[in-house]
Amino acid sequence: MSSIPTTSVGIVRPKTLHFDEPLELVSGKKIEQYDIVYETYGELNVAADNAILVCHALSADHHAAGYHNENDSKPGWWDICIGPGKPIDTDRFFVVSPSNLGHCSGSTGPRSIDPKTDKAYGPDFPIVTVSDWVNYQKRLADKLGISQWAAVAGGSLGGMQAMQWAVQFPDMLRNAIVIASAPKLSAQNIAFNAVARQAIMNDPNFHGGHYYEHDTVPASGLKVARMLGHITYLSDDAMGDKFGRELKNEQLNYDYGVEFQVESYLRYQGESFAGRFDANTYLLMTKALDYFDPAEKEGGNLAAVFEKVQVKFFLASFTTDWRFSPERSREIVSALTDAKRDVSYLEFESNHGHDAFLVQNDDYIDAFGAYMENIEVST
Amino acid sequence: MSSIPTTSVGIVRPKTLHFDEPLELVSGKKIEQYDIVYETYGELNVAADNAILVCHALSADHHAAGYHNENDSKPGWWDICIGPGKPIDTDRFFVVSPSNLGHCSGSTGPRSIDPKTDKAYGPDFPIVTVSDWVNYQKRLADKLGISQWAAVAGGSLGGMQAMQWAVQFPDMLRNAIVIASAPKLSAQNIAFNAVARQAIMNDPNFHGGHYYEHDTVPASGLKVARMLGHITYLSDDAMGDKFGRELKNEQLNYDYGVEFQVESYLRYQGESFAGRFDANTYLLMTKALDYFDPAEKEGGNLAAVFEKVQVKFFLASFTTDWRFSPERSREIVSALTDAKRDVSYLEFESNHGHDAFLVQNDDYIDAFGAYMENIEVST
Repeated sequence: MSSIPTTSVGIVRPKTLHFDEPLELVSGKKIEQYDIVYETYGELNVAADNAILVCHALSADHHAAGYHNENDSKPGWWDICIGPGKPIDTDRFFVVSPSNLGHCSGSTGPRSIDPKTDKAYGPDFPIVTVSDWVNYQKRLADKLGISQWAAVAGGSLGGMQAMQWAVQFPDMLRNAIVIASAPKLSAQNIAFNAVARQAIMNDPNFHGGHYYEHDTVPASGLKVARMLGHITYLSDDAMGDKFGRELKNEQLNYDYGVEFQVESYLRYQGESFAGRFDANTYLLMTKALDYFDPAEKEGGNLAAVFEKVQVKFFLASFTTDWRFSPERSREIVSALTDAKRDVSYLEFESNHGHDAFLVQNDDYIDAFGAYMENIEVST
Repeated sequence: MSSIPTTSVGIVRPKTLHFDEPLELVSGKKIEQYDIVYETYGELNVAADNAILVCHALSADHHAAGYHNENDSKPGWWDICIGPGKPIDTDRFFVVSPSNLGHCSGSTGPRSIDPKTDKAYGPDFPIVTVSDWVNYQKRLADKLGISQWAAVAGGSLGGMQAMQWAVQFPDMLRNAIVIASAPKLSAQNIAFNAVARQAIMNDPNFHGGHYYEHDTVPASGLKVARMLGHITYLSDDAMGDKFGRELKNEQLNYDYGVEFQVESYLRYQGESFAGRFDANTYLLMTKALDYFDPAEKEGGNLAAVFEKVQVKFFLASFTTDWRFSPERSREIVSALTDAKRDVSYLEFESNHGHDAFLVQNDDYIDAFGAYMENIEVST
């Protein structure tokens, strides 16, 4: 008997498309050929005007909704928002959810074999930016017969891709859904990424990124990076409520082992992540975050960038998110209103920090759902 | 010609006292004998009622004011607050500033030789707590002929020592000066410390803390720990104002080197710190922070702890401090007022985050000075 909820898209299977036209990157480098792994949920309608592109953040991937098999303990990362009757309603929309170029879950990335050398790319895989991702996603749309997205949607780094779509191909989407995101990283955001990268690159098993050839992985560096990242995803309050100063054991040991539950939790999260994620991809994703700055070409004037964009925006932020605080979303809203664009913005009460965009919250789901219901699609 | 400002205490020399009575620690372990390095500024009066104990935070030491020689580029860490005419006025007060047990700047710590083994203690140096520090500081007071401090003062972890003095030896001080501090670490505070320790302990040069014997130091781990710490000392705003997204070079390189000034700054800070600080001491100091919780013995009721304490308190916090935010100081104030104690509390506007207690700020200096002027001492 299946334990898969009926509100889910059910069992899903990733697909792969191969692209052999070289992709020119912002850096000036290019990727000669590549695979993109993606999932789809729902059906593309005859007019092909009901497609939604879902973009993932740092550590997520193409598996955004549903289950890979009946025994999966958890669904895809945005299952609360994607499915029948959910905000991204798969009874109405056709959802496309790719793993980004540079990732480690099937799409071509540092862990893939470079056909030129027959070895893993490793650190020689070129750094890809949010703009480069939008370019491969455009080609993916072309292959799937989608000439305009009903919406491009994502949270955090995923929201940055939605924003970049609006800037880069303004005629190819009608709505941009930008949740818990920011117009660019702050110095503090960059600083946290720099520390995470340093921890990975310091690991003696990193071998300058060539660890695949040494049949090892920089797990301890990646663990530290993830522990640090994890702190920035949670609110101070949520950590306090969840762990406080609760001890791991009954009494203090006064040694350098784990004393508090929060340490134990973080170590577990770090180890589990290091066991499944690729360190070179982690480096690359943090760099994509660092480089994102769509206003840069207009001398920092984001409103000037949006003036050329006829796309409706839905933005949402969460009160305790200190990685990309509500203030950062308001910067985007402010640029959009200065440019006299059509924007809906909501700030939701939540105790979950940056992770709030991944957590069930009726106000958030209802408001997101109401916005999506108003997107017209052919029947 | 000396470049030493006349507002400074001038050239100072550290002194050392040896203690050969074993110190019993909270952990149940003991330190058989130890040295304490300290500096003094000003003169102890005949009544010996004008002495101020200054307690340092994580990375500072006994050198709180003045210069060690005429070519010193920087004075001691709290020179803005200690000196003739300054809040801790050395024309009125006799200041005692020790390096804590477990530190790496002269007082006995992990880097010292264990007389039992003739080798450095390393990781076998017992973990000392804030309460243990107060105990050695009490012995230091005894040796210096001070039966009651006019005040015990400090910022951050130093403020915790001032609080602990009030709790542990309430009759031995008249005032506790607790700046930018907290009644105990939050889960998030502990989590950041856990990440810093993990980075150090992961370093292959750490050798389980026995790195002295391997003639090496875990510099890269300590560097990451310090980079992370540094982010938590600065406000998001201050980092933004100082660095924003300013580039290190004229253009982006799209590689894993340093792209932004803030990365370069953090790396420099991390490397400089790793060159002068001992990793085992860093671990120990973060543990002392984690364990501090004076209310624990009263089931978390800090007011109940303060009810037994007849000491006047001066507390100060800074608006952009997110390591120990004003809210954390207000928790202490609230416990003191619940216990009907005498407390002055001020919250200062500052852009400098946690580091604000070390930075010149007229409002802060004036208010601190006014409080100190009202402390009566014999002439």
